[in-house]
Amino acid sequence: MKSKMITAPYLLFLGEAQDPIAVKTARGVAQWRPENCLGEYGLPGCTVSLGLPSMSPAAAAVLGAKTFVIGLANAGGTISDSWIDAILEALDSGMDVASGLHRRLKSVPVVRDRAATLGRRLLDIRFTDEALPVGTGLPRTGRRLLTVGTDCSVGKMYTTLALEQAMRARGMDANFRATGQTGILIAGAGLPIDAVVSDFISGAVEKLTPNAAPAHWDLIEGQGSLFHPSYAGVSLGLLHGAQADALVVCHEPGRPHMRSLPHYPLPDLGETIDANLAFARRTNEAAALVGIALNTSALGKEEAYELCADTARQYGVACTDPLRMGVDEIVTALESLPHS
Amino acid sequence: MKSKMITAPYLLFLGEAQDPIAVKTARGVAQWRPENCLGEYGLPGCTVSLGLPSMSPAAAAVLGAKTFVIGLANAGGTISDSWIDAILEALDSGMDVASGLHRRLKSVPVVRDRAATLGRRLLDIRFTDEALPVGTGLPRTGRRLLTVGTDCSVGKMYTTLALEQAMRARGMDANFRATGQTGILIAGAGLPIDAVVSDFISGAVEKLTPNAAPAHWDLIEGQGSLFHPSYAGVSLGLLHGAQADALVVCHEPGRPHMRSLPHYPLPDLGETIDANLAFARRTNEAAALVGIALNTSALGKEEAYELCADTARQYGVACTDPLRMGVDEIVTALESLPHS
Repeated sequence: MKSKMITAPYLLFLGEAQDPIAVKTARGVAQWRPENCLGEYGLPGCTVSLGLPSMSPAAAAVLGAKTFVIGLANAGGTISDSWIDAILEALDSGMDVASGLHRRLKSVPVVRDRAATLGRRLLDIRFTDEALPVGTGLPRTGRRLLTVGTDCSVGKMYTTLALEQAMRARGMDANFRATGQTGILIAGAGLPIDAVVSDFISGAVEKLTPNAAPAHWDLIEGQGSLFHPSYAGVSLGLLHGAQADALVVCHEPGRPHMRSLPHYPLPDLGETIDANLAFARRTNEAAALVGIALNTSALGKEEAYELCADTARQYGVACTDPLRMGVDEIVTALESLPHS
Repeated sequence: MKSKMITAPYLLFLGEAQDPIAVKTARGVAQWRPENCLGEYGLPGCTVSLGLPSMSPAAAAVLGAKTFVIGLANAGGTISDSWIDAILEALDSGMDVASGLHRRLKSVPVVRDRAATLGRRLLDIRFTDEALPVGTGLPRTGRRLLTVGTDCSVGKMYTTLALEQAMRARGMDANFRATGQTGILIAGAGLPIDAVVSDFISGAVEKLTPNAAPAHWDLIEGQGSLFHPSYAGVSLGLLHGAQADALVVCHEPGRPHMRSLPHYPLPDLGETIDANLAFARRTNEAAALVGIALNTSALGKEEAYELCADTARQYGVACTDPLRMGVDEIVTALESLPHS
């Protein structure tokens, strides 16, 4: 997605954050793309660090920083008045600014005007004004994997990024394709699929993962769940548009209910696998389940390994906790997946 | 949807149409809401008529017309230069203008400026800038029916409108809830669901069909199909958001392939019923199939009646061609549907 391409290297902005959760997005960028992160910048009062060199926007620009990345979450997704000076300093120093906040950079007049005067880009990556096609369902060359899940926030992004890392380590040609704001900041490109007009969900995914070399893998970050009453439409459009050869199902055992919906229980893992495979096969008959990724953070080590082994036996595919155990077994399954 | 409410009565604009298909939308308004249609207005060269009194915008305004309705389809959905004078005359005469075209009325400077000067509303009903909530899946009072289908354009809107008419004829309290541009022009209100940002599909439907009296029926116009590779996300969000008590499945027997997708066969009717019921029950456990509506226009009369009888036997519910046979049997099934 050229229009959304974020130019590296970055200076990661931490604002006045005092809580590791508030800088989760910036931490994701530093973890998965350390080569793109020149430094971090916290305002007075900021008590968290990503372990990167601390520097001002002006100093970072001298060292070559191209984009000031606001990888912060705060209540309401607003742009704090106290951040404006830092944003303007970044623009004045020659940087673009990228933000994953709900409030658009372009909606702050002083920021918008300064960027226009200086010819800098304001990248509001939660939004897209890209012209998108209606999905066609036509087959595309190259291979595709999609992570799906029983719910939101069960590790789809993490699993997809871990697969990219592990596949590249084996010399495989693989690209993470981001569909959410954190993923887009990490990848430096992508499409915020939940911000797309609903007529174009599957078309947007087709555009994000176009024809590619036969051995190339697009690893598509999944969103939501077919069983989530708020977001299932996004998940189904993503599933049809991906035309995935391979699905990895992500799940958090023991989660008490669907995210933000205390009145909805989680679907069963088997039910989730069946529904996703059935709908995936509508646009790619060869779609196969290649692995299950469990978030076992609530379990002890032994219990976690036992659960993964049991789950692997039950469904006949690799099962792992990517954070604890890596994703090598899933990559091995991908290597031996027949070409469709 | 207050923001989109179109004020009756209307003058229906036919442009220079020479083809009945081009005025399909206007014909729908005249057919289903004759009480709202004061007259029609064709430009020189127009060879079609809806059988309404022909009158100029100025003359219609004198008779009380409140909205000039552009219910025309043309290649590309553009606003022809030759229509501008008529649109301006309508504005000058005191009318709002409503349009179902892709090109926005607001994007034509002379139209936008005249409307602003005169304080008239330009209703581009294919678009929405309404603030929408994320779906909650929480139960709502009142009863809901949703039409679903094997494909696009299999009669969902027609069936829903026919049900409204038949239910009202029996004294039932029922409202057609429009989700597409023709439906919105007919109902004078609604939400263009395929124009909604994908995060809000089910939330938009929840807002369109809010809490209501226990015996009240919202009859929700369905869109697309769970099996349509371009639009299934819209269909699933609609299905979850509707929390339908009753589903009617629409189908055109013998259709060779999915609309606009020659490489995709139609799903089986039984498969369509099963998938829709399964996903509908995620947000309303009591969701039930109450009828099947077949478009039998390609069949002879006897063959059509036989097919409906066979289909009814096979699936154990009423089956009818609404255009040929009405929808009374489905309404009878609705009357005896237990309250959930």
